[in-house]
Amino acid sequence: MITLSHGAGGKATQDLIKKTIMPRFRIRNVNFLGLDGLDDGSAVNVKKVGGKFFVFTSDSYTVKPLFFKGGDIGKLSVVGVVNDLSVMGAKPLAMHLNLIIEEGFDTGLLERILDSIGKNAEKDGVAILGGDTKVMERGKVDQLVISAFGVGVADKVITDAGVKVGDDIIVSGGVGEHEAAIIVEREGLNSTVKSDCASLSRVVQKILRVGGVHAMKDLTRGGLSMALNEWSEKSGVGLEMGEEKIPVSRQVRSICRVYGFDPFNLACEGRVVVACDPGKSEKILNILKRGNAGAAVIGKAVKGGEVVIRNRFGGRKILRPLEGVMLPRIC
Amino acid sequence: MITLSHGAGGKATQDLIKKTIMPRFRIRNVNFLGLDGLDDGSAVNVKKVGGKFFVFTSDSYTVKPLFFKGGDIGKLSVVGVVNDLSVMGAKPLAMHLNLIIEEGFDTGLLERILDSIGKNAEKDGVAILGGDTKVMERGKVDQLVISAFGVGVADKVITDAGVKVGDDIIVSGGVGEHEAAIIVEREGLNSTVKSDCASLSRVVQKILRVGGVHAMKDLTRGGLSMALNEWSEKSGVGLEMGEEKIPVSRQVRSICRVYGFDPFNLACEGRVVVACDPGKSEKILNILKRGNAGAAVIGKAVKGGEVVIRNRFGGRKILRPLEGVMLPRIC
Repeated sequence: MITLSHGAGGKATQDLIKKTIMPRFRIRNVNFLGLDGLDDGSAVNVKKVGGKFFVFTSDSYTVKPLFFKGGDIGKLSVVGVVNDLSVMGAKPLAMHLNLIIEEGFDTGLLERILDSIGKNAEKDGVAILGGDTKVMERGKVDQLVISAFGVGVADKVITDAGVKVGDDIIVSGGVGEHEAAIIVEREGLNSTVKSDCASLSRVVQKILRVGGVHAMKDLTRGGLSMALNEWSEKSGVGLEMGEEKIPVSRQVRSICRVYGFDPFNLACEGRVVVACDPGKSEKILNILKRGNAGAAVIGKAVKGGEVVIRNRFGGRKILRPLEGVMLPRIC
Repeated sequence: MITLSHGAGGKATQDLIKKTIMPRFRIRNVNFLGLDGLDDGSAVNVKKVGGKFFVFTSDSYTVKPLFFKGGDIGKLSVVGVVNDLSVMGAKPLAMHLNLIIEEGFDTGLLERILDSIGKNAEKDGVAILGGDTKVMERGKVDQLVISAFGVGVADKVITDAGVKVGDDIIVSGGVGEHEAAIIVEREGLNSTVKSDCASLSRVVQKILRVGGVHAMKDLTRGGLSMALNEWSEKSGVGLEMGEEKIPVSRQVRSICRVYGFDPFNLACEGRVVVACDPGKSEKILNILKRGNAGAAVIGKAVKGGEVVIRNRFGGRKILRPLEGVMLPRIC
């Protein structure tokens, strides 16, 4: 059981770090000073790492329940950070992990979550370089919050402002499955829907080798509509999407019907939208389809400043970003 | 008032970031892509920044009360990260800030904390490059937790393993004042003690120019005893300290007497211990004294593996790291 003394910075904290946390992370160093140093921070030798840019990202993970179909808060922390780095064109290199734990938290549960972090970080060759452990009194934090920071390297940084008129817009698979899976767990529903929570690092590296990628974005909070609206605003383009082209699984559709949610607002944790030169979109689509058969070209960038969805009868509506909240703490 | 929709990743989140958070941070960029990009992360051009090493550190701040004599959770987040980077020999460059806010949190209070972050970051020339905002339901987190990530650059990294036999050990001022100030706030005591919470960046840069610095450590959780024990273990040296040489203010002493605390276990947030070549210690001491008259040489590194405190009668005791917890959530 985790006690306040594990967060006091004294011997108990050191024991927790050395015996419970460190052994679960196999990659703990990037060309200099990492987790084993247990120092005030970590350090990376710039020249040995290469790359013109260091790319940074950070996110806190508060998802409840901690374990869900297709993932857990530990996996989410790693893939969340890895995906943000990946869509910026960076190779994920390292992470720092800040754990904020409720007093009384089960040590076995913490170990399972740390194992999941270790396994997922290792898959992508990501080092856990450091972090921080705080324990809050019972009732002062809900079980566990993980705040994660990621570092990557890139020779070229891809931003949300890169979409060009004429670009094809491709999505890597069915949307909304992460948030739908969380709804299912919380409401105790009977559904086979599984979170799409997964690393995009490898598939993004492959896509980048094709060339012609102008922007990428992983779909998280706010879902597809938020991502497309951000692109439209920052790139100064309109986006014309085909409603029936956007892949939404049968399970996600039925959950949305019951709760009155729009699937385009539901969060994913392993889907990416790509804006690319139309001459490259077939190659990119084929790479994405190897990972997920549902990948599809869903629209085009046009002149203008709005995200428009057309249905098969020719009707058009403007897709606005989420206002308010559908379901809290899905990530 | 902060609502769940501010953490949903949609329009309300964007508004909070653009209208409330961003304008409070004046430095938002380091040679490429920063906070204004509102992208999936930030990016720094390695060549333009210079330095052989990128240094990283991360910490979460859970202190209660949020405001205390000498500081607040916002100031603490900045100086905590800045100090960790500084003692590793790095010039602090940038931060990412993850806010975890309780639903219903007062917006005015959040603004005061953000102003404090902005002001303190600006003082040290530190950019706020990015971050994340989550809102947890009422009762699921205690007011506000800030998780901060810092990036610095260094040509030479200073580690805890650098202390050499024969080194002088210097402390930059009276110990334990931060934790004592938190005790005073929480218990409603009548005391003038003020947190030592302050940036060490400038003074550390000056000390490094003197040369002969083998190790530095800011005293945080676990206080002086934890720091000295870490040095002893990692550097494989003994440390002989003079009890009466270690500066402890009258106010800290009286608080420790009342609660039965050892001042050497109390946290600071703006004090540094320096292990240096004895030939350089006078110069270094003089620099530190300009900032705080209490700075003093408090001991020496010797052969062996223990931290020993000698009192003026010649008695010696071993100074062990804190076991258990004195006061939770002091930082």
